[in-house]
Amino acid sequence: MTKAYQGYLIDLDGTMYQGDEAIPFASDFVKALQEKQLPYVFVTNNSSKTQQDVAMKLKKLDIPAEPKQIVTTSLATASYITENYGQSRCYVIGEEGIHKALQEEGHTITETENCDVVVIGIDRNITYEKLAKASIAVRNGATFISTNGDKAIPNERGLLPGNGSLTAVISICTGVDPVFIGKPEAVIMKEALHVLGLKADEALMVGDNYATDIQAGIQAGIDTLMVFTGVTPFLEYEQLPVKPTHYVHNLKEWLEKL
Amino acid sequence: MTKAYQGYLIDLDGTMYQGDEAIPFASDFVKALQEKQLPYVFVTNNSSKTQQDVAMKLKKLDIPAEPKQIVTTSLATASYITENYGQSRCYVIGEEGIHKALQEEGHTITETENCDVVVIGIDRNITYEKLAKASIAVRNGATFISTNGDKAIPNERGLLPGNGSLTAVISICTGVDPVFIGKPEAVIMKEALHVLGLKADEALMVGDNYATDIQAGIQAGIDTLMVFTGVTPFLEYEQLPVKPTHYVHNLKEWLEKL
Repeated sequence: MTKAYQGYLIDLDGTMYQGDEAIPFASDFVKALQEKQLPYVFVTNNSSKTQQDVAMKLKKLDIPAEPKQIVTTSLATASYITENYGQSRCYVIGEEGIHKALQEEGHTITETENCDVVVIGIDRNITYEKLAKASIAVRNGATFISTNGDKAIPNERGLLPGNGSLTAVISICTGVDPVFIGKPEAVIMKEALHVLGLKADEALMVGDNYATDIQAGIQAGIDTLMVFTGVTPFLEYEQLPVKPTHYVHNLKEWLEKL
Repeated sequence: MTKAYQGYLIDLDGTMYQGDEAIPFASDFVKALQEKQLPYVFVTNNSSKTQQDVAMKLKKLDIPAEPKQIVTTSLATASYITENYGQSRCYVIGEEGIHKALQEEGHTITETENCDVVVIGIDRNITYEKLAKASIAVRNGATFISTNGDKAIPNERGLLPGNGSLTAVISICTGVDPVFIGKPEAVIMKEALHVLGLKADEALMVGDNYATDIQAGIQAGIDTLMVFTGVTPFLEYEQLPVKPTHYVHNLKEWLEKL
């Protein structure tokens, strides 16, 4: 018999949608959680979007979601900084999501290398000057935080550089490794459990990407449900070093176990 | 007694000049080579400048130099591509030096990811789109070449990201390691010996940086003269795993051995 989970942590890309299309049964699955009054949050390594952006995208795909149910790496980064360093002066490389999350948390965003913390998230407007300022600040002792270590981002053109690749410029230049916040790190999972109001052993992490979603669950002591609708194909299941707690080919299979 | 070398390979930064200032005795040293009719070339990992730019800078510092005596990583990169792949369509991230060297060697520079070779050199106008195109091309099978692996560039502001750090974006995104051309790789040294018209055991490599200049000599089977006027301090000499063939505190000490 399957354990009765009291809440769900749900990945987005490859689990809820692929590009602009909903994954089959994603909507049915989330509606079923809602009907059964099982709390859920979405957990994403995307630092560029705000909670509002993501909730709106989900709603358009008929997946019920409120902004407060979206746990982004930006949000987790802003909380992590407060918890560990208090209100900080941050030099930020990144897009709207990370800027907004830091400001809403009360941090100060500075345009100079004179800062407490360097934060890097995906930035499609990256420049050499931004990388130079960040490198100088880190070498001068600023805390170095990266929203997520994803090496590549799938896109209709192919695999484009992810934030983990951009982060490498600063870590190689300075010899300092950042603290990564996003999946598979435990930091974002701790934040997601906090928003959900549950303990690790009461929740289930649902995702398609073994290296990020499932590893995040494993490392945070959260049971995992792997779906084969995204990055990691079922063919690789046998070779996975530590298996997910459960797997399904699609979320319809899980509906009957709710 | 010191071996009589028939020609010299000479590093620039930290050996001939520091920023815009000549290193003491650099001019005397090069003039002495000229008087004794000992051939010499300068070997630099800087891919942004042309041979003309570098020769002019040296002349201003009273160091005799002609453009054809400047062996840049850009030049070595252009030759390496011809030798190994013939005339190629190159997608280039970099500044003037690398663009000019590739064009003068007869390669075609393309603005699209549809190319044979991706070349990356330092580019202070780097953009996400350039990194994306390069990553897509490498993943599609283009040969991946980086002019040099220097992690950082010293500057009056501090240590700024070097080409090795920028190159990491593409290698981490694609999982493909580039061929590096500059010091300490043997590729640029082979090119420099070719320009000098000497064999490895006839020449002496002079430089201040153990990790690049001296390692380049060691790996190419060229005797080395280390000078303590730049990056590597004399304090580190005892710890060096493989010692340079000779060392001097400054080039005046070497003048009497010429």
